[in-house]
Amino acid sequence: MSRYVMTASAQMGPISKSETRADAVKRLVEMMREAKGRGCELVVFTELALTTFFPRWVIEDEAELDSYYETEMPSAATLPLFEEASKLGIGFYLGYAELVIENGVKRRYNTSILVDQTGTIIGKYRKVHLPGHSEPQEGRAFQHLEKAYFEPGDLGFPVCRGFGGVMGMAICNDRRWPETYRVMGLQGVDMVMLGYNTPFGHTGKHETDALTNFHNHLSMQAGAYQNATWVVGTAKCGDEEGSVMGGQSVIVAPSGEIVAQSYTMEDEVITAKCDLDAGNIYRETVFNFEIHRRPEHYGLIVERTGAVLPAAE
Amino acid sequence: MSRYVMTASAQMGPISKSETRADAVKRLVEMMREAKGRGCELVVFTELALTTFFPRWVIEDEAELDSYYETEMPSAATLPLFEEASKLGIGFYLGYAELVIENGVKRRYNTSILVDQTGTIIGKYRKVHLPGHSEPQEGRAFQHLEKAYFEPGDLGFPVCRGFGGVMGMAICNDRRWPETYRVMGLQGVDMVMLGYNTPFGHTGKHETDALTNFHNHLSMQAGAYQNATWVVGTAKCGDEEGSVMGGQSVIVAPSGEIVAQSYTMEDEVITAKCDLDAGNIYRETVFNFEIHRRPEHYGLIVERTGAVLPAAE
Repeated sequence: MSRYVMTASAQMGPISKSETRADAVKRLVEMMREAKGRGCELVVFTELALTTFFPRWVIEDEAELDSYYETEMPSAATLPLFEEASKLGIGFYLGYAELVIENGVKRRYNTSILVDQTGTIIGKYRKVHLPGHSEPQEGRAFQHLEKAYFEPGDLGFPVCRGFGGVMGMAICNDRRWPETYRVMGLQGVDMVMLGYNTPFGHTGKHETDALTNFHNHLSMQAGAYQNATWVVGTAKCGDEEGSVMGGQSVIVAPSGEIVAQSYTMEDEVITAKCDLDAGNIYRETVFNFEIHRRPEHYGLIVERTGAVLPAAE
Repeated sequence: MSRYVMTASAQMGPISKSETRADAVKRLVEMMREAKGRGCELVVFTELALTTFFPRWVIEDEAELDSYYETEMPSAATLPLFEEASKLGIGFYLGYAELVIENGVKRRYNTSILVDQTGTIIGKYRKVHLPGHSEPQEGRAFQHLEKAYFEPGDLGFPVCRGFGGVMGMAICNDRRWPETYRVMGLQGVDMVMLGYNTPFGHTGKHETDALTNFHNHLSMQAGAYQNATWVVGTAKCGDEEGSVMGGQSVIVAPSGEIVAQSYTMEDEVITAKCDLDAGNIYRETVFNFEIHRRPEHYGLIVERTGAVLPAAE
């Protein structure tokens, strides 16, 4: 039985501060329709796809901050996405800011969901690797306050069955950490979907800025190859309220090859026919985990958080 | 205080079955001299640098098999390398097949050592990720019997102080496993040295053969970037007894950029001035392990060897 999944990565150009949820959802629905028109059964949207990338600002008013979060999914504003998906018979990955009250405590996560072709949520993920900082830093044109506005995800890296395979999710900065892919690879993941907002100027250094696109692809290509999985990376990009973010959304095969790539900094749909069995050649040979991995030598990966150097000479 | 290490990767063309240890050592000494002449204080040789890549053959005669291993280091045959290193004031990484008797049991490892500028061995590593198979496979032009001729390394991924920094070693197939670099990254490694013999036709599939060089670089570039470390990869390559092996030896910066690359399939020295502090920009920002890693979600990496899929739908 063939396991092809016609897949779209629906890159998103900037969302201005003044755009409403309805505006964003309208753009997403348009791209969903285009994806369907191009034969897709799955469309991967970006991280925090419903609003502007608000962690770039210091927001001291709690009501204002809360206004960027979803308290239910679907909500009145996002329901059209679910309805359209169900009507068209197309699934989707969607990233959004999630606010939940648990035991009377307000919790905030950078979240993504996977919705199947009937409009049903079949998977949920909360971003584990939050980049940036928890306090405003002086002298920056834009902050990166994800560590202030979200807490680290508490769901691990779950996978779920769907679209004929094993589906996994990650978000933005997760893609730079090999642990992200490996934990899902050890659950037999066939496709990792991830959205990202990656501002230039993040480190304030030209050296890293110039390599933003290279690092974006390097991380996803290595994660794909080393785990014999598809990786679908979807950017929010372009000049958003004066902060420019990288594009070059991609669909990466289990060989590590980029098989589709966006070339604009706007809303843009790219597609590929993804054979979920394309990774088998690697899983059965060089990346047959069962016969080649040596976990007895990997202990430090879970025993340590930061690096500990050997004693000085 | 600057921490520059002028470094050479000394790629090696084929070693025929008829070449002696003395022949191989002579070639290594020549490249060591060239490296020194080009200002280097460290030269990285390849994996199993003293003989032809014998795991390609079924060798049933134990004495014949033993003849490919070193029982002491330095030996009479390899002493000239150590003497030349000491005379020139240049260190080296060397890969070789190691045979030791421990408690009356013959043990075989695919080993590398790091020798400092005085000719003293300061580090030793035994290959953890052995590729290939433990039994001959029918229908192959060449076998890959590393799992028969070596046992997995028992030293983990140790690092050592040397050359002004923290130095780590890996061998060949280790480079495809992100755990290799990460375990050393968690010990603050500044430079990972590794040699490789990578035959084409390894999986018997054209799909992977065509990507051999791409995968070689992808693995090392990702390992470098994700751990903010230099990676020096040195091939044995070319047509060795009818088996062709990939070249493209590289020196990779902590940015993941290739800063030197060989272009022949012969003995060839490439060099780079490696700033061991070049990774600091990453270590202090996006790859500040202490503030960004989340080991509580990495458990499967050590709890599982092979992949376990979620229950079927």
